[in-house]
Amino acid sequence: MHTTKPRVLLRGCRFVVTMDDGRILEKVDILLEDGIIKEIAERIDEKDDVVVNCSDYVVMPGLVNCHTHAAMVLLRGYYDDAELHVWLNKMWEVESRLTPDIVYLASKLAILEMISTGTTAFVDMYFFPQATAKAAMEMGIRAYLGPPFIDIILDRKEVMKELESFIKQYEKHELIRPIVNVHSIYTCDEETLLAAGELSNRYDLLYHIHISETRKEVFECKKKHGVFPVEYLDRLGVLSERTLLVHLGWVTSWEIELIRERKAKVVHCPTSNMKLATAGFFPLKEMLAQGVAVGLGTDGPASNNSLDMFREMKTCVLLQRNNYWRTDVGAYDALLMATAEASKILGIRTGMIRRGHLADLVLLNSKSLRMMPLRKDNLVSNMVYSATGGNVVMTIVNGRIVYDRSRHEELLEEAIRISERLNNFIAKGH
Amino acid sequence: MHTTKPRVLLRGCRFVVTMDDGRILEKVDILLEDGIIKEIAERIDEKDDVVVNCSDYVVMPGLVNCHTHAAMVLLRGYYDDAELHVWLNKMWEVESRLTPDIVYLASKLAILEMISTGTTAFVDMYFFPQATAKAAMEMGIRAYLGPPFIDIILDRKEVMKELESFIKQYEKHELIRPIVNVHSIYTCDEETLLAAGELSNRYDLLYHIHISETRKEVFECKKKHGVFPVEYLDRLGVLSERTLLVHLGWVTSWEIELIRERKAKVVHCPTSNMKLATAGFFPLKEMLAQGVAVGLGTDGPASNNSLDMFREMKTCVLLQRNNYWRTDVGAYDALLMATAEASKILGIRTGMIRRGHLADLVLLNSKSLRMMPLRKDNLVSNMVYSATGGNVVMTIVNGRIVYDRSRHEELLEEAIRISERLNNFIAKGH
Repeated sequence: MHTTKPRVLLRGCRFVVTMDDGRILEKVDILLEDGIIKEIAERIDEKDDVVVNCSDYVVMPGLVNCHTHAAMVLLRGYYDDAELHVWLNKMWEVESRLTPDIVYLASKLAILEMISTGTTAFVDMYFFPQATAKAAMEMGIRAYLGPPFIDIILDRKEVMKELESFIKQYEKHELIRPIVNVHSIYTCDEETLLAAGELSNRYDLLYHIHISETRKEVFECKKKHGVFPVEYLDRLGVLSERTLLVHLGWVTSWEIELIRERKAKVVHCPTSNMKLATAGFFPLKEMLAQGVAVGLGTDGPASNNSLDMFREMKTCVLLQRNNYWRTDVGAYDALLMATAEASKILGIRTGMIRRGHLADLVLLNSKSLRMMPLRKDNLVSNMVYSATGGNVVMTIVNGRIVYDRSRHEELLEEAIRISERLNNFIAKGH
Repeated sequence: MHTTKPRVLLRGCRFVVTMDDGRILEKVDILLEDGIIKEIAERIDEKDDVVVNCSDYVVMPGLVNCHTHAAMVLLRGYYDDAELHVWLNKMWEVESRLTPDIVYLASKLAILEMISTGTTAFVDMYFFPQATAKAAMEMGIRAYLGPPFIDIILDRKEVMKELESFIKQYEKHELIRPIVNVHSIYTCDEETLLAAGELSNRYDLLYHIHISETRKEVFECKKKHGVFPVEYLDRLGVLSERTLLVHLGWVTSWEIELIRERKAKVVHCPTSNMKLATAGFFPLKEMLAQGVAVGLGTDGPASNNSLDMFREMKTCVLLQRNNYWRTDVGAYDALLMATAEASKILGIRTGMIRRGHLADLVLLNSKSLRMMPLRKDNLVSNMVYSATGGNVVMTIVNGRIVYDRSRHEELLEEAIRISERLNNFIAKGH
């Protein structure tokens, strides 16, 4: 699958939200060739291209989900709203039986939801990343993957070995990028945190870690190490421009300064933080004021329980406004986080519609009850606050059409077959 | 339109979420006749009914939007995220030019969004309620309407006259219910608040009022009247079982007691409160603990910017969890608020799927990427946290099919025509 890469001509786009200095273009053609945006012009002559009539469509950069556990879609809604320890036990009961095949199927189901709602790349942390890689390659989405360091479950040396082999296998892959996944400072000891850091340095890979998610974590870090979590990472020497810090609901102002100094990257998961009542608050305004690159993540579909990045953008703004009692952060900021800022984090040329950039694009149907009445002046607002992933009609990754709503039914049939197998797997434990 | 009322047979429903003591039925038939739920049984023989094959569908009670300003869809995204005073000025500039025709068109566009996302009834406050009534009757949705008391704009005596004529006209209407709309305690003087109360008593109508939305409002009330806003209403004698209090972001604990004692009803608008950064916090847990009937509202589409009650339910839970640092309020609570609790507020027998109740129902497609894998045990969770109004395939009000996704394109064409006229109207002001 996805071996041919025809030229794709997006003809007569109603609007193009470039995320390039706020520019919104109208009635232009966009030519995609060899995985990149080859040309943007009023009129481009077609050759033997795939031509998409975009007169009703809004073209925007693909959305990046900077933190998830895709295969946890298996556990969507499972014992939801139960007491936290009941929920965690029930989850673990199922997770302890996981196989690569189940992770493959669940990843595929999650990716189907992602591509159909406009996500073109995701950063993942879960068991059996080979299985998720297989699903991602089949569906044509960009995936940032690696086996997780988590001492309480997996042997460090095994994970190191697996990671090295994963790196070798995907070194040159155009869609799959290896990363160093480190579960947390409370599930990994110092030796593990350091070993992971060493691999991150040696291979120049993201060091992706959950940090300062709960009050308990922060208090225990302070008690055990005498410093706050981000300070702790810095003391170990693993806070760098490669570090991708997820959650930070309990981060201090001086840790934010440290993040800026070290040029570390950050992911905010508003829905998950709210739904799990982890409390604390992600200080987005302070992060942005310091020029820290902040992306958005849905977190796993068992704690969200959606992979729709449109919903995440809206929730991000709502949460900031609720907690600051101010309207500083707005629709365009959220859209930046999900596109151009995320690309900075991943270090790839997506997130912006500009000649020479990678052709990771999403087409929205502007003829939608949700977004009417639509004009250029309310477009960004309606995309972030009114649209959902349901407005996506086409998703393009690396110049290839990976989702086309006109063929939604076929994907749905596949999803139904997968769901049945996942439900059987869950039932087996009972 | 909508003059015939055929029997409708919902055949082989995959799941029926009754909201009746938590019961979820599987593989049953539901017969609708004369606007009510006539029968629920394993197998119902058909006569000359409209038969809907529901083997892939989840049947649930229709959602009630307990507070909105539907026609403000005209201003969706208009100068959004601008400074508050800029936004309000720009809004008012357009609103001052409103005509009944524009309100009719905008109401229709809003109702199209509502019925296509599962809303079967809405409580509205806006100018030219006759125009909104016309749109509601044409679309077949239940609407609670009345001219607004707002001294700074409209003359009290004129509003009283208009309301009395509105009441006479719709006294016996099966879908349109007159209500007493009172904008707020800071835009209406005591005489108006009392006159409105008198009409509410005399005709036994809801007394629908914005209250304790902002800190400023509460402080000024305290300064001017020596008491908090709900106390003030009580002192005037207009706090009763007919009072519908909207927002209450700054309500005190003793006002909640007063609300319980007077059996007043309450509407929570989480998205609007967050987006407008009105701050404060709606104490849902305390309200529920006191047995107060609480409904959910989107507020106007200019401050939300969506009319999708599915999104509102999720945001309601997220907000509570964020502010309480607890998970007490869950998916089922939110669904109750949008259905059975809302029906208590409106005083009608909807919100529950039970023999003899009004046939206001919504059909969701269970074969949706958003909701998979789906089982009985995760159904409610997936409906509230994962689904959106985009999962709605059919909406039934008073036994009539008012929305059928297979005919979505026709509605869309109408919406596009309306949008063009609304955009022209906005442009005229420039």
